[in-house]
Amino acid sequence: MGEFDVIARFFKRPARCAALGIGDDCALLQPAPGTQLAISCDMLVLGRHFFADADPCQLGHKSLAVNLSDLAACGAKPLAFTLALALPEVNEPWLEAFAQGLFALADAHGCELIGGDTTAGPLNICITVFGEVPVVNGQSQALLRSGARAGDDLYVSGTVGDARLALDALQGKLTVPADVLTLARARLEMPTPRVALGLALRGIATAAIDVSDGLMGDLGHILEGSDVGATVQVDQVLRSIACYARATRSEDHVGIDVSLEQWRALALCGGDDYELLFTAPPRQRASVAAAAQASQTPVQRIGLIEAEAGLRLVDERGQALPNHYASFDHFA
Amino acid sequence: MGEFDVIARFFKRPARCAALGIGDDCALLQPAPGTQLAISCDMLVLGRHFFADADPCQLGHKSLAVNLSDLAACGAKPLAFTLALALPEVNEPWLEAFAQGLFALADAHGCELIGGDTTAGPLNICITVFGEVPVVNGQSQALLRSGARAGDDLYVSGTVGDARLALDALQGKLTVPADVLTLARARLEMPTPRVALGLALRGIATAAIDVSDGLMGDLGHILEGSDVGATVQVDQVLRSIACYARATRSEDHVGIDVSLEQWRALALCGGDDYELLFTAPPRQRASVAAAAQASQTPVQRIGLIEAEAGLRLVDERGQALPNHYASFDHFA
Repeated sequence: MGEFDVIARFFKRPARCAALGIGDDCALLQPAPGTQLAISCDMLVLGRHFFADADPCQLGHKSLAVNLSDLAACGAKPLAFTLALALPEVNEPWLEAFAQGLFALADAHGCELIGGDTTAGPLNICITVFGEVPVVNGQSQALLRSGARAGDDLYVSGTVGDARLALDALQGKLTVPADVLTLARARLEMPTPRVALGLALRGIATAAIDVSDGLMGDLGHILEGSDVGATVQVDQVLRSIACYARATRSEDHVGIDVSLEQWRALALCGGDDYELLFTAPPRQRASVAAAAQASQTPVQRIGLIEAEAGLRLVDERGQALPNHYASFDHFA
Repeated sequence: MGEFDVIARFFKRPARCAALGIGDDCALLQPAPGTQLAISCDMLVLGRHFFADADPCQLGHKSLAVNLSDLAACGAKPLAFTLALALPEVNEPWLEAFAQGLFALADAHGCELIGGDTTAGPLNICITVFGEVPVVNGQSQALLRSGARAGDDLYVSGTVGDARLALDALQGKLTVPADVLTLARARLEMPTPRVALGLALRGIATAAIDVSDGLMGDLGHILEGSDVGATVQVDQVLRSIACYARATRSEDHVGIDVSLEQWRALALCGGDDYELLFTAPPRQRASVAAAAQASQTPVQRIGLIEAEAGLRLVDERGQALPNHYASFDHFA
């Protein structure tokens, strides 16, 4: 099976929103009048972002999910994406499952595959995604990292830390009960991009980012981009690890080999969660709650944006905690 | 040096045409009213598209050139691009040279880097490029593969076959004089995307494609897309190999180990040339010549589009030649 057959068989579908889809030198996309195109790009590499035995259907889902998550963080409505694939071989069942996982998520978000490239090479998946953001009175409605202001509340959606818990457990660094691992693996392998929440937060949130490299590091980007500091209530974040509750509820903690300190590190530094970390002024609390409800996405208030630079951590009694949590870096 | 340092140090520059450039979850691009966005994506893999000892500056050039070539084939004006890079290590001199070659070509075309991704992994370069195409009276001005009509002339720009000659000579499959190899290597390593010609052909050409996989294969895409056939005058194509003239002029063909049959195969099947292959009705011959002159790009008429399906080859006397030329396939 040749390069063009791979595209035709597994990835070519009729164009819908695009003026022209797969099959020419370029795809053609015409954003609606009065909108901007939000564009993001993520590359997933074997051994770095997934294992050789990764389920191809889940991998197809995740490859697009991490990109949709960037659109969510901008409050952009998904439109389309391109897919570049380097494949060590043409493995038809693998490609079929990959395409199935990819298109299931794409269809759920009305996001169309409009072009791409396939080549032989070490397995590499590169997706570039396109979303739409309205421009109102000359003002982009995109959520940026740079809009946080002193006095804003800091929120995180869903749960953070579970994906890293799964990774550590799969690598034998931690031991947790089977039901906890199952829950955590689903978060690692089938992350949910918070697209509906991102859309609902337009005009409410002042800044947003998705948690891909870990909450501490990603919060750092908001603080830097907005030229502010923050205090984070660590145990509020801790509560947002789904697995924490489940694990600590296990009978007498049977089979749990995770300390409080490790739970905190998972919540603060675990990457790959694809939750939204965002800020909004206190007067918007009701609107944030309404956005969470409308998008059926849990949201937790975890701290406060402050004028003083730096990132401070406190426990539930407001006592300062030492900050020795670092973020994940692909070259570290 | 970490992931974010690589971006900040080598690739971050202030946004120009983009509403928002590198540094947030998404870039924001606002196409001009009445235009479509042409989008294309190419992935370059070590060992497949370039060698380990490839000059990084030339590689930066070529990575973008192959993408700009897709815009050229659509008649789209380059606007912006994203870059995803998997790097086995952070090699600063290599990155500096790569960025230099990349930005030199980008700046020459006013094409802005607006986002991307870097990760550790086997060397892989994935660029997605964005260009602008006007829509006039609801009609896209993009050049497509599907517009060729029986009776149209078939043209190719510049020279084809030289890039493959260089590849074969570097791999020891052919022997050519040093000055010929120098000429051919420049074509392989620093291809010229025919952007100005593509723009000049809007409203004149009926169909276009860039020659990346070889003239025969790429012509096949036009024939299939337009549901037509063609007759190609092989020795007209042959004349368009720059190296052919130079090599056959060498004194008594000293040092030349290339048969006529090999020259034909190079011209018809050699890939990596990034010339434009296009069609236009005979009444447009003067306009094609004017477009070639205005864009300072040589153009050669090499055949005729016909209603009869299939691809026929003839020599300079019009005698049929056997067609045993295959195109390049990345998985063959």
